[in-house]
Amino acid sequence: MATPIESPETPTAAEAGVTDDPEAVTPPTDDLSADERALLVENLRFVLDGRWRSTRDTVRENADRADLLPDPSRTLDEARARMLEEMRELAQNGFAAAGFATDHGGTGDIGASITAIEMLGYADLSLMVKSGVQWGLFGGAVENLGTARHHDRYVTDIINLDLLGCFAMTETGHGSNVQALETTATYDPATQEFVIDSPSPSARKDYIGGAGQHATVAAVFAQLITAGPGEEPSSRGVHCFVVPIRDADGNDLPGVTTSDCGYKGGLAGVDNGRIMFDQVRVPAENLLNRYADVEADGTYTSPIENPNRRFFTMLGTLIRGRISVAATAGAAGRKALTLATRYGLIRKQFEAPDATDEIVVMDYIAHQRKLLPLIAKSYAIACAQNELTSELHEVQSAAPDDSDAGRQRQLESDAAGIKAYATWHASNTINVCREACGGAGYLDENQLSIMRGDIDVFTTFEGDNTVLTQLVGKELLSAYSDDVQGLTTAGWVRFVVGMARDVVVEKTAVRQVVQTLLEGSDEDTEKSNLTNRGTQIRLFRNRENHLIRTCAQRLRVALDDGNDAFKVFNNAQDHLLKAGQAHTERVVLESFIQAINDCDSRSAAELLGKVCDLFVYSALEDDMAWFLMHRQVSVERAKAVRRGVNELCQELRPHARSLVDAFGVPEKLLAAPMLEHA
Amino acid sequence: MATPIESPETPTAAEAGVTDDPEAVTPPTDDLSADERALLVENLRFVLDGRWRSTRDTVRENADRADLLPDPSRTLDEARARMLEEMRELAQNGFAAAGFATDHGGTGDIGASITAIEMLGYADLSLMVKSGVQWGLFGGAVENLGTARHHDRYVTDIINLDLLGCFAMTETGHGSNVQALETTATYDPATQEFVIDSPSPSARKDYIGGAGQHATVAAVFAQLITAGPGEEPSSRGVHCFVVPIRDADGNDLPGVTTSDCGYKGGLAGVDNGRIMFDQVRVPAENLLNRYADVEADGTYTSPIENPNRRFFTMLGTLIRGRISVAATAGAAGRKALTLATRYGLIRKQFEAPDATDEIVVMDYIAHQRKLLPLIAKSYAIACAQNELTSELHEVQSAAPDDSDAGRQRQLESDAAGIKAYATWHASNTINVCREACGGAGYLDENQLSIMRGDIDVFTTFEGDNTVLTQLVGKELLSAYSDDVQGLTTAGWVRFVVGMARDVVVEKTAVRQVVQTLLEGSDEDTEKSNLTNRGTQIRLFRNRENHLIRTCAQRLRVALDDGNDAFKVFNNAQDHLLKAGQAHTERVVLESFIQAINDCDSRSAAELLGKVCDLFVYSALEDDMAWFLMHRQVSVERAKAVRRGVNELCQELRPHARSLVDAFGVPEKLLAAPMLEHA
Repeated sequence: MATPIESPETPTAAEAGVTDDPEAVTPPTDDLSADERALLVENLRFVLDGRWRSTRDTVRENADRADLLPDPSRTLDEARARMLEEMRELAQNGFAAAGFATDHGGTGDIGASITAIEMLGYADLSLMVKSGVQWGLFGGAVENLGTARHHDRYVTDIINLDLLGCFAMTETGHGSNVQALETTATYDPATQEFVIDSPSPSARKDYIGGAGQHATVAAVFAQLITAGPGEEPSSRGVHCFVVPIRDADGNDLPGVTTSDCGYKGGLAGVDNGRIMFDQVRVPAENLLNRYADVEADGTYTSPIENPNRRFFTMLGTLIRGRISVAATAGAAGRKALTLATRYGLIRKQFEAPDATDEIVVMDYIAHQRKLLPLIAKSYAIACAQNELTSELHEVQSAAPDDSDAGRQRQLESDAAGIKAYATWHASNTINVCREACGGAGYLDENQLSIMRGDIDVFTTFEGDNTVLTQLVGKELLSAYSDDVQGLTTAGWVRFVVGMARDVVVEKTAVRQVVQTLLEGSDEDTEKSNLTNRGTQIRLFRNRENHLIRTCAQRLRVALDDGNDAFKVFNNAQDHLLKAGQAHTERVVLESFIQAINDCDSRSAAELLGKVCDLFVYSALEDDMAWFLMHRQVSVERAKAVRRGVNELCQELRPHARSLVDAFGVPEKLLAAPMLEHA
Repeated sequence: MATPIESPETPTAAEAGVTDDPEAVTPPTDDLSADERALLVENLRFVLDGRWRSTRDTVRENADRADLLPDPSRTLDEARARMLEEMRELAQNGFAAAGFATDHGGTGDIGASITAIEMLGYADLSLMVKSGVQWGLFGGAVENLGTARHHDRYVTDIINLDLLGCFAMTETGHGSNVQALETTATYDPATQEFVIDSPSPSARKDYIGGAGQHATVAAVFAQLITAGPGEEPSSRGVHCFVVPIRDADGNDLPGVTTSDCGYKGGLAGVDNGRIMFDQVRVPAENLLNRYADVEADGTYTSPIENPNRRFFTMLGTLIRGRISVAATAGAAGRKALTLATRYGLIRKQFEAPDATDEIVVMDYIAHQRKLLPLIAKSYAIACAQNELTSELHEVQSAAPDDSDAGRQRQLESDAAGIKAYATWHASNTINVCREACGGAGYLDENQLSIMRGDIDVFTTFEGDNTVLTQLVGKELLSAYSDDVQGLTTAGWVRFVVGMARDVVVEKTAVRQVVQTLLEGSDEDTEKSNLTNRGTQIRLFRNRENHLIRTCAQRLRVALDDGNDAFKVFNNAQDHLLKAGQAHTERVVLESFIQAINDCDSRSAAELLGKVCDLFVYSALEDDMAWFLMHRQVSVERAKAVRRGVNELCQELRPHARSLVDAFGVPEKLLAAPMLEHA
């Protein structure tokens, strides 16, 4: 690494000499007493911690250990072995039981389970991912797609780590398009077995966490092929099967060929691998048969008649992994911001006007503009994430008879949108934090560089962010209609075009606090103050509605003009993605407003109000071209937004430390030599 | 790594069925014959390769070896040893001679030297950085700050690697602010030695490439303290000294304590380290004394009287490192785009309308929008970089008597601006490319994840990008005046405010092609077609001029209102940064236009014209809020720009492969299993 050469701008103290102006540099701390500050931090944390705050505190207490941090000196084998060791420790402490129903051997607190996994993100993202694979994805498949015979046989062993599994969905040729998976599971009535097979190189299971080394069994997604009496064998779509892949000594079982994905951009502790199946036979009972079964004679049965609905119902139960990934990305971003903000508060560069010292870099507006809007957005996302986790808990805790398909659908869409929004934010945040810490940020001893490598793939796994954002947009345009599930892109376009004109359905009821704020604000957003919360909501809602409406119009006009439906779709793809993003940002804002509304502490609520303003102003600034182009904001107001971001940064600057302290990252997980001598 | 779950949008072939529309999906290849395409690629490459194309071809030929690629399985020690081995091979082939003057033992072709180092970026960024430290930074310090006694003694050994050096400028406490370095070099007339000392922990030399392990000598930047007869000892500012740090066995010399920076976010082959000096004595002749000297009795002399000018003159000679880093970042971005584009052209996902296969992801407009604007910007930057390298060559090849201070100053500013612009672009590009390749992109075997780690610190070293961008802005506002060198920030504000009103000085003459294009376009940009090159230049120039003028006004008004000068500066910092960015983007555009103008091939020039349009449209789109807010672009035109980006992406889609092939990355350096079976 070469050395920075300085820019010719060094201020010398003598020339600046303005010691008499206390506002020259924003004071490094706010004017609260230590006690007041501690209480404020506690109140902020109460808001951020949400419903499962006691789970958070338990993990904080147990995870406040520097030995949980990634150690870059470990070899790949050592890193993986260490991760398994840490998981065994978690298992011994009953970490995983919450994710499984009480009558399966768990304690049945899904929200606590997600929250606990999220908190692992403060320690080591490899630990979170490997735990998420075992207990969330593999365990979740058995729990949610299996029936009593699977629960009885597997769940306790999964919780205790007596059975190590992996989640073999993605193939080399198919990631986003799961319905097109090539692996086959062909029923053989003669032996009452399924024959698992990889018919081509692109059918190879790929990137599978745990398949590289530790997993002895895989939840394999494959096309179920069977024939009832008198039928021709045919595929009934993708189903999930429990398939042993290794013996106790780690050797591949007959017909199974595993290989290792090797070195990656991060997540050194996760043993990703590949699996090829050559006519591997498993007993019929290994089909996870909650939603479909095959009788001894090969007859296929399912309580869900429509194959698309069946497929999406099965996938929908696996939403937990996606929500965990979003939650953990949030935690990682908050940790990075804590490290970078603390460094920015002690790192000095260039002489201060009062000549006695240099300026703390956090006092430069450019540095504030780097970090504070990201902190504000992290607050907003944390609140939305808490709501999402809570909604997942409610939906998946409901008795089967009480299941609500519409609510499930909405949850899936929100999970997709927030996963994309939160992981892009986290990846960007960690990048910015690394750069804000200069050369120190690049040293693994200060953690940010490791986190940067680890977080990268969060934008890809559990659903590519672009594909997920598009899903949100599509759901909005087709108003969450059940009828579009399984439609082709072209079919979807025709459906949307055929819908009633200008339909914009709000599937969930507008929450009370939003309704009240909307009623208290002027419909003409230009007539009301931009700090008015109702006006802020209106701007976000108007954008979303406008994008959905005009996207639908665009599709209609293009199709009416006789264009090919796929081409029509493709030409509007960027529009559709933008609609999806705008929707999620609105959802995030309203969650944040709800959390502030529910905050009992006046001083915390007041500070959170400023944070919310900064979130809104930054979001408006980032998308100002759109607001101006669509005359949703005037030029004068646009300039006010730009000024407003600067002013809010300066207002929040004295609270920077409090704002990141409230994230509650355990102190020992913030170990970084750069914070000892900047 | 968990597995992506699909979004419910799978198109089935049956529903789409539109095989009769050849435009439904943009054809994967253009309609040129293989020969025509090859010639087009060759002509494009001729433009991109620039003046030192023969150097590029030589390196291409020699570096087309997969064994030069980084190998993530190497331990830190192995990676470093391998890098040294590769450097020794380079040295044996005379790689480094071009960077040094013929009468010092080199071959004196600075442009070739920079270009050769840039080309190493296609192989391994660690190799480029370690080579850059040895030959560019350490060698460059000896070459440019030393005199005959140093050239005679060191240069041949530096070229041959018989002397391994490092460049010890940055300290733990000071990176951007070099003038405030704490290390001291105190002259002792009794022994005619300098005493090198690190007076505090923050004076420790830090992040120094080579200091971790291999370097036996350091070019140490330190405050020179001396006293002539009858004077009190005082600091004469930062100077550079050759200081041995290790013996031949690698042990620290007496008084020297080195330590290792250890694991980093990338650049595994570079041994970054730290150095503390405890009263280390070196002979007086070890002062690199081209710009200042100390006589035996301690009298300080310099041909440059003004201490600030002396300091910045010394620093200015070291510009080569910054230009190499910018050039290499460009190469890295081009390699990433080549990998991602090739993958995008074979990776398929979701069924195509004609039912026979799935759609190549590059046919989705969202994917085109990810990659093609980055390709366009890479073209523009490559052209600007070639001009910058050429200008460096001219300035540093000029006889000392012909040196032109104004031209040097302009070069430094351009180097700062393009370094920031190019490295941010490269970092962003590699991020996007990784994500565009999904899970495959995260595997080190496909290179992008390694490149992502390596490129990260390019935005920091050789000058923090924010500080560099600010430097450009400051130079613009003070019209490159010599008088501002060494002024404090506050002093600079006062200088700018005191200048003639609305001064916007174009220091370099407007180049002929730009002048002609400007004359051929309407002054009212709205009245002329947006593909008019003169209009494009006007838009970029108007933005730059407006930002400079209004920033100066803003400073003036704020200072007139009696505000503290530092606060005035700080409040306008984001405005100043934007002015710097706008300037660099305009410079890049004009370089690109020049290169297209000079292109002999009509078909290549025509395609480059589209690429230039996409660069311009994307840049306008990225900054559209500004153009709208300042009424430089109408709402209607803004919408046309957005549509235009989509249209240009679709027009360039058939040429995607040609455009990246023209980068001329050696085939064996593009080894990536993902390209064998997508």
